[in-house]
Amino acid sequence: MTNNKRIKLGIFGFGCVGQGVYHVLNQTKGIKADIVKICVKDSKKERILDSSFFTTEPADLLDNPEIDVIVELIDDAEAAFNIVSYALKKGKAVVTANKKMIADHSEELYTLQQTYQVPLLYEAAACASIPIIRNLEEYYDNDLLTCIEGILNGSTNYILTGLTERTTTDFNTALREAQLNGFAESDPTLDIEGFDPRYKLSILILHAFGIFTNPSSLFTFGISRISTFDLEFARQRNLTIRLIARAKKENSTVTAFCMPSFIPSNHHLAAVRNEYNGVLVESLFTEIQFFAGKGAGSNPTGSAVVSDISALSYDYRYEYKKLKQKSATQLNEQSLLNLYIRFDDWSVVDMSVFETISERFSSKKNHYIIGEITLQNLRKADWIKNPAVNIIHFPKY
Amino acid sequence: MTNNKRIKLGIFGFGCVGQGVYHVLNQTKGIKADIVKICVKDSKKERILDSSFFTTEPADLLDNPEIDVIVELIDDAEAAFNIVSYALKKGKAVVTANKKMIADHSEELYTLQQTYQVPLLYEAAACASIPIIRNLEEYYDNDLLTCIEGILNGSTNYILTGLTERTTTDFNTALREAQLNGFAESDPTLDIEGFDPRYKLSILILHAFGIFTNPSSLFTFGISRISTFDLEFARQRNLTIRLIARAKKENSTVTAFCMPSFIPSNHHLAAVRNEYNGVLVESLFTEIQFFAGKGAGSNPTGSAVVSDISALSYDYRYEYKKLKQKSATQLNEQSLLNLYIRFDDWSVVDMSVFETISERFSSKKNHYIIGEITLQNLRKADWIKNPAVNIIHFPKY
Repeated sequence: MTNNKRIKLGIFGFGCVGQGVYHVLNQTKGIKADIVKICVKDSKKERILDSSFFTTEPADLLDNPEIDVIVELIDDAEAAFNIVSYALKKGKAVVTANKKMIADHSEELYTLQQTYQVPLLYEAAACASIPIIRNLEEYYDNDLLTCIEGILNGSTNYILTGLTERTTTDFNTALREAQLNGFAESDPTLDIEGFDPRYKLSILILHAFGIFTNPSSLFTFGISRISTFDLEFARQRNLTIRLIARAKKENSTVTAFCMPSFIPSNHHLAAVRNEYNGVLVESLFTEIQFFAGKGAGSNPTGSAVVSDISALSYDYRYEYKKLKQKSATQLNEQSLLNLYIRFDDWSVVDMSVFETISERFSSKKNHYIIGEITLQNLRKADWIKNPAVNIIHFPKY
Repeated sequence: MTNNKRIKLGIFGFGCVGQGVYHVLNQTKGIKADIVKICVKDSKKERILDSSFFTTEPADLLDNPEIDVIVELIDDAEAAFNIVSYALKKGKAVVTANKKMIADHSEELYTLQQTYQVPLLYEAAACASIPIIRNLEEYYDNDLLTCIEGILNGSTNYILTGLTERTTTDFNTALREAQLNGFAESDPTLDIEGFDPRYKLSILILHAFGIFTNPSSLFTFGISRISTFDLEFARQRNLTIRLIARAKKENSTVTAFCMPSFIPSNHHLAAVRNEYNGVLVESLFTEIQFFAGKGAGSNPTGSAVVSDISALSYDYRYEYKKLKQKSATQLNEQSLLNLYIRFDDWSVVDMSVFETISERFSSKKNHYIIGEITLQNLRKADWIKNPAVNIIHFPKY
């Protein structure tokens, strides 16, 4: 693609993000890109664009020689993968916002980019409007990253902000409030159990440390068991609770997980409130860098997609430098994590799997311990399945 | 410059930042850059590098055909400008960290880059390790920016963190504490009167809105008059105080200034503590984006310089897109600002210059009003020179 040519777009999907892309493109001077065709499921639906733009036939985009960039914005990750891999094989550049597709197929998609020498950009797939992938690729290309962690899911952050700041002290009420305000899905499982942020964590690990990870192999613990007692514990110690996805490099291995964490009230991550996302990058030289912004929504996500389209116009592509530098080699589950474990009966938790225990507390209904355990032992522990047990990471910031 | 060639560097200055650049380069795999020569004032001083690297003769670098990139890291802004403009005219790319030089000569330096078609990069000049210029140039190239504001000076932020969080409630004690800990200069005027952040604001205005501004024309009010009374006022309303440089676009004009501001305690800017910097970018589509990181120091600044050197290796240059898009045309001093004005006597402040007054308070020693005034009227008001008067911006976040 050259600097002087207008980019011709074929878009799959015209839901919330697709319409955001249309609006952002429409109101932006300076970007030379035109929508040629949009592939949708139902061509009869009334839309903001003339019906001549729409088709239900993927081939009208994928086999259309006029179209040079495919913008993939559909929900179904497997259908999306078929579209994207077909497009790449045909030599069409692709922009996508599909985190599950990218995370589940990262290695295949990397190989396709190398084989067919065609760019695939997906800034919108991790924290929408926050330019984290671009910064990991470009700005931190020579710095020695040691840790990346953050709030990668807006729905759970909205619920947690409700629980920790507003008068809502009950998880189900906070969830309903988030659903009523449009910040949580009617089936919230993907979010509240931490599966959504896990996809994004997998993508960030690739661009920060150069490891392909299977997202389902990353340890995840959700927020649905957070109780009034846990909230009160946090309040007494001037902490808040956030769902944190974290990947920390030690030597050449990476410890990665997604878990609720206690955060000091004056910490950057505590200032990430409601539907916002925030990412903290630690490195040897720049030390701590923090990014925050809207992690979802029509315009923020649309804007990230348009920024990728614009980047294609000056031949930008991800170099996957960390992968080539072999920055890290594999995941590690031997590092010790400091955890708060709250439960209703001392017989529930097997204490022998903890390396150290620094605090023990008992009251009539609630007990907790604070102690160190390896991720491997935590994953193997049966008692974490008990709904009366809650786990919150208690890192030292 | 091509991707396969090693970059040959000539460095001016080997103080704190110069040594940081050396360390970062030294410990970084993957960057193809070698130091050829370093120009210093005193070649006799004992240094961490062999004396054969050093010279006191600028021509040994500037007229050396082996050197293709000049890295300018000296203090004196005028001497730096002479070095940089000479280098650009000779077709050598330049990386610099000199904010005063860039801000004072932005238009001439822009013209030199265009005339000689050679890149000048200066990410380290604004907030050191925070990649704000790169993001304004690249990621927000098509978004419609409406406001950029932030904490652009680490020394004053260290002092203000002391005043608002620690037991230090007296300005001079907080200043001495910052000096003792190496976070403020022995002559702190440039920082505490807001002159240093004003240079950075001028640079950010160019990359966010495409206007050349004379830094000395930007209204600035420092932090040295902040009193125990002001701190108590903030505490009672759950606010903190930060020195904020702000540029806000309305229609096609920009209102810009640097002033202490009240910030809600749970706001991103309140979480920027001690020597850190933070920048908030508001735009039509991505809405609010926040960046934080170390704004000074040997390694964070050195890392930003090395990131620019690395960017040169893939032919990166600033496009000054906002300038070409004529995003905004001029500064404006007609917008109303909501200010807290504290003083010791009602006769001191001329109330007639306020458009509205929303609060008035009197006690034995301290009085304040909160009201709206234009920047133009504030600038003209004689009473702001009175050391018994303090001004704090009271924006609605």
